[in-house]
Amino acid sequence: MAVHAVIMAGGKGERLWPVSTPDMPKQLHSFGTDRSLLRSTFERLEGITDAGRVYVVTNSGIAGKVGEHLPELPPENILVEPVGRNTAPCIAYAALQISKKDPDAVMAVFPADHLVEDDAGFRNAITFGIDALAGRPELLITLGMVPDHPETGYGYIAPGETLDQDGSLKLHRVLTFREKPDAKTAQEYIAKGFLWNAGMFIWRVDTILDAFRRHLPLMYGLLADMGVQGDVTRQEVEAFYKAVDPISIDYGVMEKASSVAVVPADFGWNDIGSWDALAKMLPRDNSGNVTKGDVLLEDSTNNVVWAGDKKVVLIGVEDLVVVEGENAILVCPRKQSQLVSLVSKKMTNP
Amino acid sequence: MAVHAVIMAGGKGERLWPVSTPDMPKQLHSFGTDRSLLRSTFERLEGITDAGRVYVVTNSGIAGKVGEHLPELPPENILVEPVGRNTAPCIAYAALQISKKDPDAVMAVFPADHLVEDDAGFRNAITFGIDALAGRPELLITLGMVPDHPETGYGYIAPGETLDQDGSLKLHRVLTFREKPDAKTAQEYIAKGFLWNAGMFIWRVDTILDAFRRHLPLMYGLLADMGVQGDVTRQEVEAFYKAVDPISIDYGVMEKASSVAVVPADFGWNDIGSWDALAKMLPRDNSGNVTKGDVLLEDSTNNVVWAGDKKVVLIGVEDLVVVEGENAILVCPRKQSQLVSLVSKKMTNP
Repeated sequence: MAVHAVIMAGGKGERLWPVSTPDMPKQLHSFGTDRSLLRSTFERLEGITDAGRVYVVTNSGIAGKVGEHLPELPPENILVEPVGRNTAPCIAYAALQISKKDPDAVMAVFPADHLVEDDAGFRNAITFGIDALAGRPELLITLGMVPDHPETGYGYIAPGETLDQDGSLKLHRVLTFREKPDAKTAQEYIAKGFLWNAGMFIWRVDTILDAFRRHLPLMYGLLADMGVQGDVTRQEVEAFYKAVDPISIDYGVMEKASSVAVVPADFGWNDIGSWDALAKMLPRDNSGNVTKGDVLLEDSTNNVVWAGDKKVVLIGVEDLVVVEGENAILVCPRKQSQLVSLVSKKMTNP
Repeated sequence: MAVHAVIMAGGKGERLWPVSTPDMPKQLHSFGTDRSLLRSTFERLEGITDAGRVYVVTNSGIAGKVGEHLPELPPENILVEPVGRNTAPCIAYAALQISKKDPDAVMAVFPADHLVEDDAGFRNAITFGIDALAGRPELLITLGMVPDHPETGYGYIAPGETLDQDGSLKLHRVLTFREKPDAKTAQEYIAKGFLWNAGMFIWRVDTILDAFRRHLPLMYGLLADMGVQGDVTRQEVEAFYKAVDPISIDYGVMEKASSVAVVPADFGWNDIGSWDALAKMLPRDNSGNVTKGDVLLEDSTNNVVWAGDKKVVLIGVEDLVVVEGENAILVCPRKQSQLVSLVSKKMTNP
């Protein structure tokens, strides 16, 4: 039962504009670490599977760069989406490709643009989930991050009865998924022991394809038309993406399926959903500033300052995000940095 | 009695960094107007004197650009200071050169980097001052700007008895000069009818040279050694600037001299002493923002935003100065924009 891993790298990274742009989105940047988020995601899979069984789903604009970041990857494992249609079509397409090679495969799915601090903890949790499938092949397993604060920017997962255990690692049935809450509701979720939905999944490829058949039958029908006589062609992929509606795997499958389980995990996870969130992961100076590049601060506290090819100088300001991208400069309060995606959408799709 | 005009263009423009830099200081920029401040200063002299009698004192780094901005100027009228020594040596050197050509000349002195809204009003005031010298050749005349607010960034002039009058134009004896005041003192100065010291002067060249002899005898001695046998040589200029101490004409001469007069003037003057001051001279949008270049504002009010080659985007901020220069980006509150010179000094003289 070989493990195949899918890295979803089609995101536009609009929340970290103007460093992240459609041509060079978030997953291709290092953001203060020593390699790109994509590269880190790939290397984190060492010991779980081999490069030949890692697939990256991405868009045509950055497929070449994905190959440069991951030279170990067989070129045919870069699956190019002609257009983004959220995570369900992305996972369906990857599942089809894996299924054609190995119908008994275990499939694990990871976003390309998240930070993980404890790689060993990550591998332990994933391996535990994979092993659990041996006895319970019907499960769709997701990873649930143990929250350390009542975050309103994430969806939540309510864990139920314990299905399996190995040391501190546990597998729980999922009672329900919850959308991003308001602040008060987030507090309640924390009190109830809910987990953050991190968008990482482990399942048998035949199980997820069967779940598509049940819960997204139109999409499954389109998928089943592909590669009937051999390899999936580029024309078939284009027709599939043109025909399917955009929908997330959570909304389209996970929230409807019955045999869903969660592995609570605590390996220092962050989806870097804003400049503010990124700054919380990085070292700060004595005045609480997080900086990158050629930055000069005078009488300035708690700022996030990202310099590009110019020197960035702040005098007498606090709690600001100041970011120099290749073609644009952003200034906004840290608290409002989640609004960046709204503006970056306008920039890139005027 | 021909009029010779001296434009002092040796300033570094540190207060408008990072657009203004040592290589391309304030006076060479247009700052939202249609020509450089230097060019505007030159053109404002039309009707007062001819290009052949206009001298620009500047530094070697930008002398070439000064010539490009003022192609009408005879090249020998660009007087290059080997090093900046404040305004007294600058004016002494220019006075010497003018005196050698025309010992009876009237000499008028103007900074290269100020804004004037009403050029006709400017010319009327200057012409009135020049005419007044016919009957009172002993006077050192300065222009005093009628204040419209208790500015703490300027020196003040206390006017005394009226010496001359032509319509609304008056010439007053100067009672005293005052340094930049604190806010309370500035209020008192306004109440007493004091005027802003704008650093513009009108006098006979023999009168100012005599004033140097009396009040700055060491500097005058060094000056008198130059060009004794003909033209002033470059070596002599270098020796003079190497030997003189830096001192302003106000402190070195005007505050000590007895026959000092002032022409109150009200022609929309601004020395653009900060980004905040500049913004007050330029049109603003409905939210009070002053912008130049490719700027996008979301929910942002009363900002000064100067874009260079990148797009500048502000979200949810107010009362900020955000300036993109060629090599640096500045972010500071408008109220603190007078601190920019302290930082820019560090940048350019690390």
